Amino acid sequence: MSGGLRMWQDMEKERETLQAWKERVGQELDQVVAFWMEHSHDQEHGGFFTCLGRDGQVYDDLKYVWLQARQVWMYCRLYRKLERFRHPELLDSAKAGGEFLLRYARVAPPGKKCAFVLTRDGRPVKVQRTIFSECFYTMAMNELWRVTGEVRYQSEAVEMMDQIVHWVREDPSGLGRPQLPGAPASESMAVPMMLLSLVEQLGEADEELAGNYAELGDWCAQRVLQHVQRDGRAVLENVSEDGKELSGCLGRHQNPGHALEAGWFLLRHATRKGDPELRAHVIDKFLLLPFHSGWDPDHGGLFYFQDADGLCPTQLEWAMKLWWPHSEAMIAFLMGYSDSGDPALLHLFYLVAEYTFRQFRDPEFGEWFGYLSREGKVALTIKGGPFKGCFHVPRCLAMCEEMLGALLSRLASAPAPGAPSPPAVPDRKGAE
Amino acid sequence: MSGGLRMWQDMEKERETLQAWKERVGQELDQVVAFWMEHSHDQEHGGFFTCLGRDGQVYDDLKYVWLQARQVWMYCRLYRKLERFRHPELLDSAKAGGEFLLRYARVAPPGKKCAFVLTRDGRPVKVQRTIFSECFYTMAMNELWRVTGEVRYQSEAVEMMDQIVHWVREDPSGLGRPQLPGAPASESMAVPMMLLSLVEQLGEADEELAGNYAELGDWCAQRVLQHVQRDGRAVLENVSEDGKELSGCLGRHQNPGHALEAGWFLLRHATRKGDPELRAHVIDKFLLLPFHSGWDPDHGGLFYFQDADGLCPTQLEWAMKLWWPHSEAMIAFLMGYSDSGDPALLHLFYLVAEYTFRQFRDPEFGEWFGYLSREGKVALTIKGGPFKGCFHVPRCLAMCEEMLGALLSRLASAPAPGAPSPPAVPDRKGAE
Repeated sequence: MSGGLRMWQDMEKERETLQAWKERVGQELDQVVAFWMEHSHDQEHGGFFTCLGRDGQVYDDLKYVWLQARQVWMYCRLYRKLERFRHPELLDSAKAGGEFLLRYARVAPPGKKCAFVLTRDGRPVKVQRTIFSECFYTMAMNELWRVTGEVRYQSEAVEMMDQIVHWVREDPSGLGRPQLPGAPASESMAVPMMLLSLVEQLGEADEELAGNYAELGDWCAQRVLQHVQRDGRAVLENVSEDGKELSGCLGRHQNPGHALEAGWFLLRHATRKGDPELRAHVIDKFLLLPFHSGWDPDHGGLFYFQDADGLCPTQLEWAMKLWWPHSEAMIAFLMGYSDSGDPALLHLFYLVAEYTFRQFRDPEFGEWFGYLSREGKVALTIKGGPFKGCFHVPRCLAMCEEMLGALLSRLASAPAPGAPSPPAVPDRKGAE
Repeated sequence: MSGGLRMWQDMEKERETLQAWKERVGQELDQVVAFWMEHSHDQEHGGFFTCLGRDGQVYDDLKYVWLQARQVWMYCRLYRKLERFRHPELLDSAKAGGEFLLRYARVAPPGKKCAFVLTRDGRPVKVQRTIFSECFYTMAMNELWRVTGEVRYQSEAVEMMDQIVHWVREDPSGLGRPQLPGAPASESMAVPMMLLSLVEQLGEADEELAGNYAELGDWCAQRVLQHVQRDGRAVLENVSEDGKELSGCLGRHQNPGHALEAGWFLLRHATRKGDPELRAHVIDKFLLLPFHSGWDPDHGGLFYFQDADGLCPTQLEWAMKLWWPHSEAMIAFLMGYSDSGDPALLHLFYLVAEYTFRQFRDPEFGEWFGYLSREGKVALTIKGGPFKGCFHVPRCLAMCEEMLGALLSRLASAPAPGAPSPPAVPDRKGAE
């Protein structure tokens, strides 16, 4: 067989595998969105029920602000990016969710602190002394502005962003956490990661805001990179303010799925900056390293938490397999491959995607299970709860569909047989 | 075989089985105490390391106040109640732990609020907005007074008790929890349970204090009993202030091990009051009911959390088997049998004790594993951590040893063959 013919056959095989995954991912996205559209809309008060049992039944009507805002964001993003989701029901539900947030999320307006959870009719139940409710609120408002063009949403987003940046970089006292003499001045990776994703959200196709937040984006990236510790051999969730390892369990704490998520946030940053060195570093430290240390060699899947010294974590759920680290890993590896052409990353995408579709999907009632035992058995049958809503699964599926489409387009415009070889990509079976 | 002979043989069999368990429990207690004596003492700062790996290695030197105080209490109690533990090392370590608490537990003396966790040298790291650090502090101080006779410990205990009662019954604002309009006015069963155990602690052999707290004890018992809901078919962890079921997951939340622990607290209350009707009610609702709904029919062991409607709980660890519900169940069933003579309760003691010794003990390094998967595999290899210290296991073993001893004494003074029959008790094998 001639070299040209084999190369053509390899490319054809790759094209077929990518195409098959694109279809699989797209169909899954349709089913997942249908699940939330059918079961989660609160027609009476606006906003969404997110405590949904296996079959979609509402088992609690509390409204977690993270999940309200994420669902608004997700609906708007789908509406904006994918033609087949551009229908009024999605937009109307997103707007109703946005209005619910505008009216009720803030605990004591005009103060900007948002509740963590509200009653069905919007009364605050709990407040967290962190920035995350406010961050998801900002994402929701910015995306609502993008689909509706209504300036009040964007004003809300930009004002809240200013408040968040003030809390993080200037004065956290408004969050209400007491400063205790024994508590180390530590940084959770979640904070600069979250801010980095807001910089991307607000700066998309908006030169002015992108410029305003350029320094902040660099600062966030640098702070996330500080979490690579031990001469590049570990990503640690918590480090000191000046980027050193902290003592004890807090310092050794690792969350492989979170590192992978930070990885794709940083890959986007590297793309915006046009920085191939950063990209290579990120692939090495935030994609390959957490995968190799975090993937369970016995049962497959990513551990939820680990200890950097290999000691037993103190979190009861450390060995469980959660849906979201796997969604983030799918995005990270496919993005890493798209950006670098390294076939090892496509191999890992296939491996993680096969595991994820096999273990988490619920073909009977739709959506994914969220929580499996170490061995991969369903441990919680719920489809939504205090921390699982309409977000990680559809975000992963929509992004993978888009990236798979772009890869297929690139292949379609690749040189004909006989021309110089594109990066060799193993087929899907070989990835198992 | 004559009826008298068979009765004599049954009694002899019961005696042997009780005697075997008394020895087993006593030996286990010796090994467990030896584990903490060897690995947990901080000779430099006083107090105890409680983050101990499988072999006793310290993996974190944070000092959780609940566990510091519980270990002080446990050491004093052993010293006071069991002759073979009356040695100076135990007492000296308890006193060093007590001094550590006196010096460092309170966040802002003379304010009484205590930290939840301290650095090794006593600086506060975290404060919980609950009463539990203060309750365990009170237990420790009262027990230290009992073994040393030093009045300053007792003053500390009584003053802290006054503060706790003020927070619970008059004004919780000093705890620092914000009152939010959407948060239901709810009562966690833990609060009146904990106070009831303090009433017993402070009132032991102290007529004046027992008198002072008599009304409080009745109030606590009545509040705990309010958690029996649904026409007596469920014990719910959280109810409204006026004793009604709350909506949603919070209202349906159940914790079988906690109900069993409340059960033996109430049995002691019933004994103090001389109230056989209360005793029968408690055995029915707080011993048999949680056991029958909470025992895993497939793998054995008590579920950690359940939902009263049989829905899936949202806590990731709901199906795990934890050491302490099993320790509490052993105490509850043996006490229920001692108080009532009902052989079904002895049967359940044997069943739970066999499971517990088989699954949680670590014959290689001593002490018990704390956290098993639903199927009974060790999920965390740690022997101590933020919530597991020198408390539930030795308290269970010491109390069971004492109760088994008392049952054996009763049998020894039982009437000779031919006299009226004592309650029939099945043998240990029959309990499996």
